[in-house]
Amino acid sequence: MNLTAVNRNVELICVGNELLIGKILNTNAHWLARRITSLGLLVRRITVVGDDLDEISSAIREAIQRKPLFIITTGGLGPTFDDKTLEGVAKAIGCELEENEEALEMIKRRYEQYAAEGRIKKVELTKYRIKMAMLPKGAKPLPNPVGTAPGVLVKHGDVNLIMLPGVPQEMMAIFDESIAPLLREAAGNMVFYEASLEVRGIPESDLAPLIERVMRENPYVYIKSHPKISEKTSHIELHFSTTSEDLNLAKQRIEKSIMQISELISDKGEKFCL
Amino acid sequence: MNLTAVNRNVELICVGNELLIGKILNTNAHWLARRITSLGLLVRRITVVGDDLDEISSAIREAIQRKPLFIITTGGLGPTFDDKTLEGVAKAIGCELEENEEALEMIKRRYEQYAAEGRIKKVELTKYRIKMAMLPKGAKPLPNPVGTAPGVLVKHGDVNLIMLPGVPQEMMAIFDESIAPLLREAAGNMVFYEASLEVRGIPESDLAPLIERVMRENPYVYIKSHPKISEKTSHIELHFSTTSEDLNLAKQRIEKSIMQISELISDKGEKFCL
Repeated sequence: MNLTAVNRNVELICVGNELLIGKILNTNAHWLARRITSLGLLVRRITVVGDDLDEISSAIREAIQRKPLFIITTGGLGPTFDDKTLEGVAKAIGCELEENEEALEMIKRRYEQYAAEGRIKKVELTKYRIKMAMLPKGAKPLPNPVGTAPGVLVKHGDVNLIMLPGVPQEMMAIFDESIAPLLREAAGNMVFYEASLEVRGIPESDLAPLIERVMRENPYVYIKSHPKISEKTSHIELHFSTTSEDLNLAKQRIEKSIMQISELISDKGEKFCL
Repeated sequence: MNLTAVNRNVELICVGNELLIGKILNTNAHWLARRITSLGLLVRRITVVGDDLDEISSAIREAIQRKPLFIITTGGLGPTFDDKTLEGVAKAIGCELEENEEALEMIKRRYEQYAAEGRIKKVELTKYRIKMAMLPKGAKPLPNPVGTAPGVLVKHGDVNLIMLPGVPQEMMAIFDESIAPLLREAAGNMVFYEASLEVRGIPESDLAPLIERVMRENPYVYIKSHPKISEKTSHIELHFSTTSEDLNLAKQRIEKSIMQISELISDKGEKFCL
């Protein structure tokens, strides 16, 4: 299989003013990036925009033009006026929003449960509740095991658009139940493998030529240096990662490059630890 | 002054594979967004790309086309082969990289200090160290009080491009020393003011019409609902924010809208707390 010919690209688009004003940390993007990478796919870009229809639709349109296999959005699926993600998707792909019966049924069942638990007084489907069932034409709602707004899947040409809520527990639950299996299938047998080496006493500028040399001799392994601030000595984390169809091969490749760089560092008479 | 006519837009571009593989949380974007907002400017978009020249230069080119007043990048200024932010900037704005004497002097002084402290053996300016002084033509280096790579400021038409390192302590130190004063000046007297109200027992879909009504009557105030997952009852944080040239006016506006929504919630016979 020609690995480079297979599209494994994913883009994340996170919607919410709270991210742009620094009210909250984007833990959703972090969690998704980690999970998607470990499933063997490649996150190529993360975009954060506010609750603004034009911003959302341009971000989606631009991402579609880069032709990833998946675009996953978080946020903006709820009942308030500023939950505009689905409108943004519809605008970006040139389709209408329409009431989706399956989604409406999911929402209705959730409010029936809330009423049975005494959390709400009546199940009435107000326009704010129906809003969460207004999906782009042809979309498939994805069950939300812990909240009200369903996730949404829309195919647009070769791109799979997946919309998830912004509440982390809801986003994670829908991802695990409905999205992870899709991504795993798309990734085939690819696995991501990583390891780190801590190096003290050598500044990053002196590690740079060693990294270059080891990467040249190990073309499948990516080595990235992460300097840490330290008052007394240089402290660098070297992070090794690779993606392969064979986990053992991936491990061997990483181990070989760690061994090589460790020897080069030892030659300089310095310390390191795994 | 016509507030809408003044460009207060800022875009952040964070560079680093470690963000795309979910190795680290993007605390830099969070910290910058919070600081920039509190200085009275508007973060309009955050983009995360990997250590890839084409990705970096396209992200910068696209941001320039949206004409923000400032574009601030983090990451990719160090000595290794995959520190490519300045090359990406040069490519995006169509200029050359050249050895900047002021930057080289900053870097040299830093290594002299390391040598005096016994952290390194010799001050030799290797090509990896000189790389950090290769700046886009016409750029101004910004002193890095805690690390080696200087920050960089380049003006391109009406856009101010600011490049900061990815190591958080270095990024924050350069921001506080060299960038915050520029942003404060650009913001004029604008201040950002915010407050929150916790509401329990009303689902978000029933708060939605109250939020709409209060926002209609308080056009300067933005109200955003943040639902929290709770097993037993609905739990929503209502976040109120506004930007104004007059702090007292901002406070009054927020207080008035909190009062109004609190009354509407009380009419529903439910609880809330500030």
